[in-house]
Amino acid sequence: MKNFEGHALPGCYFLAVGVLWSVKYPIKYLMQRENENISKNKWYQYLELLEGMGKVITTLVGILAGQFIPEVDLLTWTHGTMYFAYVLNGLVDILISLPLGLPPGLDRFMLSQALFVEGFLFYFHAHHRPALDQHIHSLMLIAIFGGALCSLLEVFMRDHPILELLRTTMFLLQGSWFLQIGFVLYPPWGGPGWDQTDHENIMFLTMCFSWHYIGALLLFIINYTIVYWYVVGLKNMQKSHINLSSLT
Amino acid sequence: MKNFEGHALPGCYFLAVGVLWSVKYPIKYLMQRENENISKNKWYQYLELLEGMGKVITTLVGILAGQFIPEVDLLTWTHGTMYFAYVLNGLVDILISLPLGLPPGLDRFMLSQALFVEGFLFYFHAHHRPALDQHIHSLMLIAIFGGALCSLLEVFMRDHPILELLRTTMFLLQGSWFLQIGFVLYPPWGGPGWDQTDHENIMFLTMCFSWHYIGALLLFIINYTIVYWYVVGLKNMQKSHINLSSLT
Amino acid sequence: MKNFEGHALPGCYFLAVGVLWSVKYPIKYLMQRENENISKNKWYQYLELLEGMGKVITTLVGILAGQFIPEVDLLTWTHGTMYFAYVLNGLVDILISLPLGLPPGLDRFMLSQALFVEGFLFYFHAHHRPALDQHIHSLMLIAIFGGALCSLLEVFMRDHPILELLRTTMFLLQGSWFLQIGFVLYPPWGGPGWDQTDHENIMFLTMCFSWHYIGALLLFIINYTIVYWYVVGLKNMQKSHINLSSLT
Amino acid sequence: MKNFEGHALPGCYFLAVGVLWSVKYPIKYLMQRENENISKNKWYQYLELLEGMGKVITTLVGILAGQFIPEVDLLTWTHGTMYFAYVLNGLVDILISLPLGLPPGLDRFMLSQALFVEGFLFYFHAHHRPALDQHIHSLMLIAIFGGALCSLLEVFMRDHPILELLRTTMFLLQGSWFLQIGFVLYPPWGGPGWDQTDHENIMFLTMCFSWHYIGALLLFIINYTIVYWYVVGLKNMQKSHINLSSLT
Repeated sequence: MKNFEGHALPGCYFLAVGVLWSVKYPIKYLMQRENENISKNKWYQYLELLEGMGKVITTLVGILAGQFIPEVDLLTWTHGTMYFAYVLNGLVDILISLPLGLPPGLDRFMLSQALFVEGFLFYFHAHHRPALDQHIHSLMLIAIFGGALCSLLEVFMRDHPILELLRTTMFLLQGSWFLQIGFVLYPPWGGPGWDQTDHENIMFLTMCFSWHYIGALLLFIINYTIVYWYVVGLKNMQKSHINLSSLT
Repeated sequence: MKNFEGHALPGCYFLAVGVLWSVKYPIKYLMQRENENISKNKWYQYLELLEGMGKVITTLVGILAGQFIPEVDLLTWTHGTMYFAYVLNGLVDILISLPLGLPPGLDRFMLSQALFVEGFLFYFHAHHRPALDQHIHSLMLIAIFGGALCSLLEVFMRDHPILELLRTTMFLLQGSWFLQIGFVLYPPWGGPGWDQTDHENIMFLTMCFSWHYIGALLLFIINYTIVYWYVVGLKNMQKSHINLSSLT
Repeated sequence: MKNFEGHALPGCYFLAVGVLWSVKYPIKYLMQRENENISKNKWYQYLELLEGMGKVITTLVGILAGQFIPEVDLLTWTHGTMYFAYVLNGLVDILISLPLGLPPGLDRFMLSQALFVEGFLFYFHAHHRPALDQHIHSLMLIAIFGGALCSLLEVFMRDHPILELLRTTMFLLQGSWFLQIGFVLYPPWGGPGWDQTDHENIMFLTMCFSWHYIGALLLFIINYTIVYWYVVGLKNMQKSHINLSSLT
Repeated sequence: MKNFEGHALPGCYFLAVGVLWSVKYPIKYLMQRENENISKNKWYQYLELLEGMGKVITTLVGILAGQFIPEVDLLTWTHGTMYFAYVLNGLVDILISLPLGLPPGLDRFMLSQALFVEGFLFYFHAHHRPALDQHIHSLMLIAIFGGALCSLLEVFMRDHPILELLRTTMFLLQGSWFLQIGFVLYPPWGGPGWDQTDHENIMFLTMCFSWHYIGALLLFIINYTIVYWYVVGLKNMQKSHINLSSLT
């Protein structure tokens, strides 16, 4: 997928998942603080199921889309392999929500394995390319393997709010960096892309990568704050409602 | 053992162990879910003992077989070293099932050390060889060290179903990749092997490695499903039998 | 900041934090041994708040100072990025001391992320420079990533005295090594700096780095001893005072 | 210390510590199994104190010995640095056995730091040397950093029999490999040492390293067996003695 769309599509997918999680996990954490076990909530369970289904459908579409490209080459097959690892991950997400008694943590394990497969293929992806191209692809490995290690840890420490924060920011980072790669190598407004041999460009993009990560942390903090006001506000409203009821 | 058989034999051995575990661990997990402590079951204890004995016998055969090769060289001795580490591992597997009070986890520790010794020798094995040869041997290190780290973790987290799954898939991956190396470098139907200088071949085999791993995960899932139907079916039959008995 | 001051200022900052912690953590540990829960002490909570505020103010000053340099270049922006990660860390330090119900360990996580961002930018900082320059900058990575990993562990093992000791020595090491780099590359008494091509210089500075770390350990031990005599002495005085009171 | 003695002396020291531990830890483990808390035994506490004192004295001797060498060069100072890290470790071993309330695990932490300092200096030790020399020095890093990581884990998992086994074998491996390096580079019977450019020599020594480790494991197993017969035999004798006493 050596064009802008080929980088923008996975970028938007990972960004969307990251944004969803940056709202979902603050809700989960703050509800549990208020002694409401959200994981038994019917709507929350539907959301988890929908996430798994969404993962399966989008990755199946990705695999099918690859079949309609006129020249099916090795790169198309490599992308299909990555997608298939996520199909398996999505199927386990769905199965674990059914009463089959699958071991807890299996969904996080399959996610970490899908990320490891992606990172493994990415690692050998950009060999024999110009320096700048190699550099921005290798920076991506930090986001991919960071997410993979975090998911693997969650097999043993489930529902840890810090690990959920780290995983969310790693997905946001991966998504926004995919878009950055697209803009650098295949600018959508045409033109030849950035000068790949300039060392200043490499240093500038290295700094950009830090800002993508800091931006991901800031987005999580903003969404946490919004959810906080909403949940605490709702609770205070309920309390004053109860107080009013008890008065009358 | 620079021929097809030299790679097919260890490949089949690791595959056989992996397939055995892909049936054994789902049985163990599902029986424990039904509140049946399988580790106190007499037949299960015999199986564990047999595994240790099988490991000792096959590796001793491997060491002896190396003595009958006309030209005993450094490579033969290197393979003997690997085998001996597994002999030690097998002996500890046998001893730990006897009431000697050995510290729990010693069997997993010795397995991880045997895998570390294998990986250590493998790492220096393929230096000074063509690029493709080096690449497919270095991919093997992922399966070997992955299995070693997983076994080391099991010293501290024994009977964790996800770690048992990971260890099983790492053994299946190692076995099937040994066969793959044999087919690539020494095709059993004769011929000169693959073109070792073509970069496309390296990329294709990198993708293949992912599929070997995905295949190992799928085999485990299939075996788990078969065991699941059998165990749950058996339990339901017993229940309906009890119900029928209580009726009459 | 390619001059002595540019290395001396961050060096003094990290040294000051390290010295502060080398007094604070022995006090905390020894008070808890005497069954006094210091973390509920009003003065201790003020100190924690002040630390967060100090972090925010010094790093904001660092960012602003960068704006007054005539030629704002990429390096200035890179330093601003590092500072901003510490601003975020300091803000979380302040917020976590307020009754907002933030997840415990978030302050340690943000500190580890700030250190990871610093180490990430440092890693690409000294490419394309002379051998000695590269070497002493790469040694710094041990102090930075050592501190980052230690802080990340503290997310899961809070208030562990050994981890607090390790984090303190890593900060002392980073601070004193910043000063060492300044003295080696830009001697404040003028002159051309050390001969960058002499291999003996590289080996000598490698040994120096060990002594900086041993010195950090010794400073912690000395401060621990002083705090020990003070806390135990105070306790014995109180006891004898109580004994005297009970006599009269 | 570029001679045979310079490698034989540290080799014998690490071997002696390893052999001592290969007897001490089986005794400790088997006594605890018999419900005898050996760590409160007076003789055991003396042994721990003696270990610390022995460490301090041998390393102080090592530092002093370096001062009497006519040409004091950078290498002498580097060795002095390594020794000093072990002096600190020995002092903490002594202090932790006194009732000062030092945090548990501090002795293991200081041991891991001494090993990290040794490994750090070893890593830059053999640059700019022939291939074989570099290779056998870099293999040593496995023993040093293996021991350092194991000791660091013991800060958090104290008295774990598997970690004590691993630490003991890493010390035995380091000791016997020091002797091997001495025999390879400076044969005590004179002669020019091994051919440093022969690739076969490198492969042979790589295999040797595996056998040194397997030998360390076997030594531990033999000592464990001897201690086992002694402890169990002693217990049975005591039991029959009690039975005889109760009869009369």
